[in-house]
Amino acid sequence: MVENWPAPVIANSLAAWRTEDMAAALAVLAPTRAAEIFTYLPRETQEKLIDALNRHLASDLLNHMAPDDRTLLLEWSGPVKTTQMVALLTPANRAVAAKLLGYPEDSVGRLMTPNYIAIPQQWSVQQVLDYVRLNGQDSETLTMLYVIDDKGVLIDDIRIRQFLLAPLTARVADLLDYQFVALKATDPEKNAIALFQHVDRKALPIVDNNGLLIGIVTIDDILAVAQAEATDEIQKIGGSEALDEPYLKIALGRLIKKRAGWLVILFLGEMLTATAMGFFEKEIEKAVVLALFVPLIISSGGNAGSQASTLVIRALALSELKLRDWWPVMRREIMTGFALGAILGVIGFFRIAIWSMFSTIYGPHWLLVALTVGFSLIGIVLWGSLAGSMLPFILRRLGFDPAASSTPFVATLVDVTGLIIYFSVGMVILKGTLL
Amino acid sequence: MVENWPAPVIANSLAAWRTEDMAAALAVLAPTRAAEIFTYLPRETQEKLIDALNRHLASDLLNHMAPDDRTLLLEWSGPVKTTQMVALLTPANRAVAAKLLGYPEDSVGRLMTPNYIAIPQQWSVQQVLDYVRLNGQDSETLTMLYVIDDKGVLIDDIRIRQFLLAPLTARVADLLDYQFVALKATDPEKNAIALFQHVDRKALPIVDNNGLLIGIVTIDDILAVAQAEATDEIQKIGGSEALDEPYLKIALGRLIKKRAGWLVILFLGEMLTATAMGFFEKEIEKAVVLALFVPLIISSGGNAGSQASTLVIRALALSELKLRDWWPVMRREIMTGFALGAILGVIGFFRIAIWSMFSTIYGPHWLLVALTVGFSLIGIVLWGSLAGSMLPFILRRLGFDPAASSTPFVATLVDVTGLIIYFSVGMVILKGTLL
Repeated sequence: MVENWPAPVIANSLAAWRTEDMAAALAVLAPTRAAEIFTYLPRETQEKLIDALNRHLASDLLNHMAPDDRTLLLEWSGPVKTTQMVALLTPANRAVAAKLLGYPEDSVGRLMTPNYIAIPQQWSVQQVLDYVRLNGQDSETLTMLYVIDDKGVLIDDIRIRQFLLAPLTARVADLLDYQFVALKATDPEKNAIALFQHVDRKALPIVDNNGLLIGIVTIDDILAVAQAEATDEIQKIGGSEALDEPYLKIALGRLIKKRAGWLVILFLGEMLTATAMGFFEKEIEKAVVLALFVPLIISSGGNAGSQASTLVIRALALSELKLRDWWPVMRREIMTGFALGAILGVIGFFRIAIWSMFSTIYGPHWLLVALTVGFSLIGIVLWGSLAGSMLPFILRRLGFDPAASSTPFVATLVDVTGLIIYFSVGMVILKGTLL
Repeated sequence: MVENWPAPVIANSLAAWRTEDMAAALAVLAPTRAAEIFTYLPRETQEKLIDALNRHLASDLLNHMAPDDRTLLLEWSGPVKTTQMVALLTPANRAVAAKLLGYPEDSVGRLMTPNYIAIPQQWSVQQVLDYVRLNGQDSETLTMLYVIDDKGVLIDDIRIRQFLLAPLTARVADLLDYQFVALKATDPEKNAIALFQHVDRKALPIVDNNGLLIGIVTIDDILAVAQAEATDEIQKIGGSEALDEPYLKIALGRLIKKRAGWLVILFLGEMLTATAMGFFEKEIEKAVVLALFVPLIISSGGNAGSQASTLVIRALALSELKLRDWWPVMRREIMTGFALGAILGVIGFFRIAIWSMFSTIYGPHWLLVALTVGFSLIGIVLWGSLAGSMLPFILRRLGFDPAASSTPFVATLVDVTGLIIYFSVGMVILKGTLL
């Protein structure tokens, strides 16, 4: 009979009922209708209802709410309750909730699960063991119990073994050493990956800005995240956007879109090479032999640049390098770039010299051409290494993602300046002969 | 007094003693001397001694043995004992032992630890619980017990919770469902990474070729391996060898060496571009305008190729793609490459067309030049995508590491053929006008 009443009216009448009666009433309705009515109940009543309903019904109710209404409830609730409610959501709804709740993308907050046991410090060991027996369904995260104070602030983590060895009448407070490792919900995922590699834990607690314990993150989620982050990084270094889907599953249109973006940006950048070449058109006309080595010269600079940039990008991602390390990196790259450039320069020089013994393709001034190529290679490889290693620092400093933006910048910068270096060296060495 | 006797003589006299007395005698000697004498004892005695000595002394003894002697003992012992002994070694010695024991590099065998509990199927639940209480020091791996038959073959894994819920008089055999997930010691590490992402486990059992349980691998080691593998892959895609050390810690000479190798190979490959350009020297002389677009053209092919190759390399590494998937990949790349080529071709055409309204740099035949560049881009981007996506399959099929070897092959192949495509298109379109 009441089924046709407007939801706010029904909610209004229900609000005065006892929680159990309300729960029973909602349980008999269709989930969509129940969720509609639920939306109009006061926040306190909503929270009590979720507690009173069984897991399945509570999950149905939350998943059928409109995302914005659900977020209002989640934001209103305390962090612990919120985490419990988020756990009842479907993965899709959970992702939406995490987004709406304002944990930044790629932050630890998005990985949070509520399958942990928190105990107050004033409990006895006996109380703790009883509580664990009743609430410890998920045995996998039970190696560690988290101790909180009256306000819910995390003050220690204690291995469950310690409780098994301690006298039953001892207090939790007696076992505290106040030594614990925790993550903040706003920490980036990569901090969590690094931390898990340094501490021997299968799960770590997550606190909010006030130190309140609001969830845990488990190492299996971290493994999945680490793999996904590496895939993103590799795809970005390869010059496309991160696909976020397996190669064979992503729709063809989306695959093209993800690749076209950076490819067009790279293409627009590389157009500057045509402009640079245009400046030296007269030199090319006079000495066509110079043009023959253009692809070799600029690809060598590009290769040196991409070596340096990928090494630095990965080291930054792993936190092996910090922003302040730019100077030791630059020093190393100057030495490395010079050594690599010298190796290629010598090979390039002899390639032309030896070839010229059997062929006249490089003309009578082959020695000068060989010197031009040799010296250009030193300059270009050195410059490529330097640019490739420094750009990720600069981009990170400016707030960009080094993996995504380094490739096109390095490529364009090294190619254009490579051409300028090459033709400038040529003009100096070949002046009065070919040019 | 006996300290100065030769080690084999002492070993000979000791061999008849009771194990405990031998252990006591070795314990008072300097570790080096003790290890020397220990080396000459019969294998059975060695094994018994390791069991009889405390962990610390046994570890000292094994670590002070010569690696080859140690390997002889490890090879002689059964797989379970071997794993236990390997666990006593320092990380450096353990790596050596793993190598010598013949588990291939990057195989699961190298990650094996012996901190697990194996139980025979004929035990009662009471026996299991007593055994766990006595031997379960390492609580972190205790969620799962491994059931073996009389020969040591793994026949099931059972959560410890099941034992807590079962009647004490029940047999292990009653609890078996013969459903378990295991890794083989010779499986590649990347299989383990993939498996851990699909099953909800913190540790997985490792068996040898006969199904014998010989150790476990824990998820925290897998996380470290996954990160290291991703780093290797990124560095290889970037065109250098995997550093295997943090960027700032690796010796400068080694850093140069790791980068010089592929850089020189790439350089030698790219020399073919100079040869290819040489073939078209006359065309360049006649139409210098063509040379202006060479860097733009070949870099676009290279970018398309590196997009395609990194996507395929990563998908192969994650086992998202198998070798047999080459055909669907090729089909996608033909369509994607054509679409991307068309986008760049149109941009390139209009770049030249619009420029020519304000400048005479591209000469009177600018329309034909624009068409040459446009059509070449379609061909080169299509070819780059195709070559970039197929080479990793071919290299993997031939037994090479696609991450390491694709970059130079794709770069050289795409650059050289790109030049040929570009000048061939030019010769067709510009015949009778510029050429």
